[in-house]
Order: sequence, then structure tokens, then C-alpha cells
Amino acid sequence: MRMLEERIRKDGKIRGNDVLKVDSFLNHQVDPVLIDELAKEFYRLFKDENVDKILTIEASGIAVAVMAAKYFARPLVFAKKSRTVNISGDVYSSKAFSFTHKTENTVLVSKEYINKGERILLIDDFLANGCALRALRDIVIQAGAVPVGAGIVIEKAFQTGGEELRKEGLRIESLARIRSMSEENGIEFC
Amino acid sequence: MRMLEERIRKDGKIRGNDVLKVDSFLNHQVDPVLIDELAKEFYRLFKDENVDKILTIEASGIAVAVMAAKYFARPLVFAKKSRTVNISGDVYSSKAFSFTHKTENTVLVSKEYINKGERILLIDDFLANGCALRALRDIVIQAGAVPVGAGIVIEKAFQTGGEELRKEGLRIESLARIRSMSEENGIEFC
Repeated sequence: MRMLEERIRKDGKIRGNDVLKVDSFLNHQVDPVLIDELAKEFYRLFKDENVDKILTIEASGIAVAVMAAKYFARPLVFAKKSRTVNISGDVYSSKAFSFTHKTENTVLVSKEYINKGERILLIDDFLANGCALRALRDIVIQAGAVPVGAGIVIEKAFQTGGEELRKEGLRIESLARIRSMSEENGIEFC
Repeated sequence: MRMLEERIRKDGKIRGNDVLKVDSFLNHQVDPVLIDELAKEFYRLFKDENVDKILTIEASGIAVAVMAAKYFARPLVFAKKSRTVNISGDVYSSKAFSFTHKTENTVLVSKEYINKGERILLIDDFLANGCALRALRDIVIQAGAVPVGAGIVIEKAFQTGGEELRKEGLRIESLARIRSMSEENGIEFC
């Protein structure tokens, strides 16, 4: 999506060869006009999938996911992250290691909010190693629901998460795919 | 706001005399159609305040705040919560005790995203003892910016946070104000 790629080039900050900071418009400060365009694009891409619900993970996936949910006119569910290990019986849970924060989180969704047979669209802001997306997909499968695909804002295509999950059959649509990046040479998109 | 009060009566779950669970439409599963109406109402209430930015706190404030930000056509900033004490020099920070989770969090906003003189509208899903809202207001004041008011989805008016902050001069507009609630007698709105 050209508009997003241009915004990343203009306002993204590269640190080393693998950290991209998009704090100024996506995950600390949020540009609602841009986010709304991204949400519309997710709707265009997945509108024929008979989506029943959208599932994202707190916190930075929520903004784009709720805007997308409005276009689909379907509920959004946001999974919660917890570092505590005591999980009650009324939630689905899956582990996800965060490379950003160097912590292992448990990802939780109440069993009330994903039902057997529902068609679930996953949405998240970033896809790199795929841990968060994998945890969301696992929760959908635990519930007996169907992961119809994943809408991702920025994919680091030089990491392996997207490739692995596509091989396992998940449809992934990333609005910007970064082939390579470095402080010296900037960003190359796929 | 009648539509919200009716939804709380219909889908809210009371536990004891002070816990109201609105997980099914506000802070785990989110109804984007309802949230959009709440966002429009915040715009109607604060549209003459020349709002430069909206500030909320992760995670459950983000959905309604980003929708409101779209109506104002202004950026949203969401404050981050951290349990770590090491704060770098490039953030504003304030402490907030969470009665829900029984933990003290540090609330953080990068200094890049709130500037001196900016008119900031605070938005959050709940107001009870006022700790989170107080932390957001403190951060705005640290930045030399102006807290023009706070838009709250649900205020527990039987707790003291709202009253105290109003006495200190903060304009607070709550879309539903609960005077009292109990498992036996249900909810009474103000």
C-alpha cells in the first residue's frame, strides 16, 4: 500500500538492522486518518470471507482492528497479555515470546467471545517472527473456530514468521512488506 | 447517554457492590458500532475546545479514543503502562495504582508526542478512584500542555475520583454515571 510505505519512509526510524520505530503514527502516537485507510484496505481484502469476528492483541493492534471491525460491522475481540501463569478454566490461552520486550507472555481470550465455527479475521500491527500471530491462531483453533486470514500493517519479510505461517496455510495480507532495512541504506519494500 | 445506559443494563454484569464487568462490549470484546456512537458524543461535547491531541492509556481506552480522534481529525497518543522503575529521560511519567489489578503501574508518554501549549483531551473507559485519569493529567501538566477536559465512558459516581478531579477544576464528561449498584438491586444511574 503506497500511502503506508511513503509514511514509513518519511516517519519511520531505523535502529540497527532490524528495529523499525513507527511510534509517531502507529504504536504510541496514532494517526487516525491513516489508520482508517488501513482499516478500509483490510475490509477490501477480506470482505468476501464472511468474517464473524476480528481478533487482535493488546495494545497496539487495537486501534486499526477496531476501525476495521466498524467496516465489517462485526465485534472486535482483543486478546489480553499476562505474565501470570495461573489461568482459570474460562479462558483460551497460548504462550508468546516477545522479542521486543524479552519476555514470555501468556495470551488470553475469554471462552465466551470465540465460538465454535465462527470465521475469525486476525489483525495485528507487526509481523516479524510470528509469535503473536501464532498465539492468536492457536486460540482460534482451540475454540473450534476458523482463522480465515491475517491482516498485518507492517511485515518484516526478512524474518521468518510470515513465510512459515503461509506455508502452514494461513492467508496473510500485509499492507507493507519490508524486504530489508538498515540505518545506512534505509528501507527496501518487497 | 441513554443508548449506553441501556447497553450496560442489558449486558453489564455486577459482581458484589463495586465491580461492573462490561467485557462483552467495551473492554475485551468491543462493539464497534456502539463505540463509534460514544466517540461521536465526545466530539459533540468537546468540539469547541480546539483540541490538538487526544490522550488515553493502554489498553482498553484505545478503541473509543481512536474513533474520537478520527472525528477531531487529530492524533491520538496512548500512554503506556510499565511495572519497571527505570525511566529514561525522554519520557514523562506518573504513578498510578490499579485497584483492579492490585499493582502500581508507571504511566509513560514519550516527550516527543506532547508539546508545550497543546490542548489535550483525555479519554478513558472507566473513572472510579481517578488514579489513571490523574496520572494522565499530571503528564499533560508536566509537558506544559493544557488538559481541556476528560471524556469518560462509565463513571462510578459512588467512588470519589470524579468529584475530587472536578473540584480541582478538570471538566469531566461521563457518558454513563452510576450512582449505585448491587447484585440484588441492579444499577441506578445519576
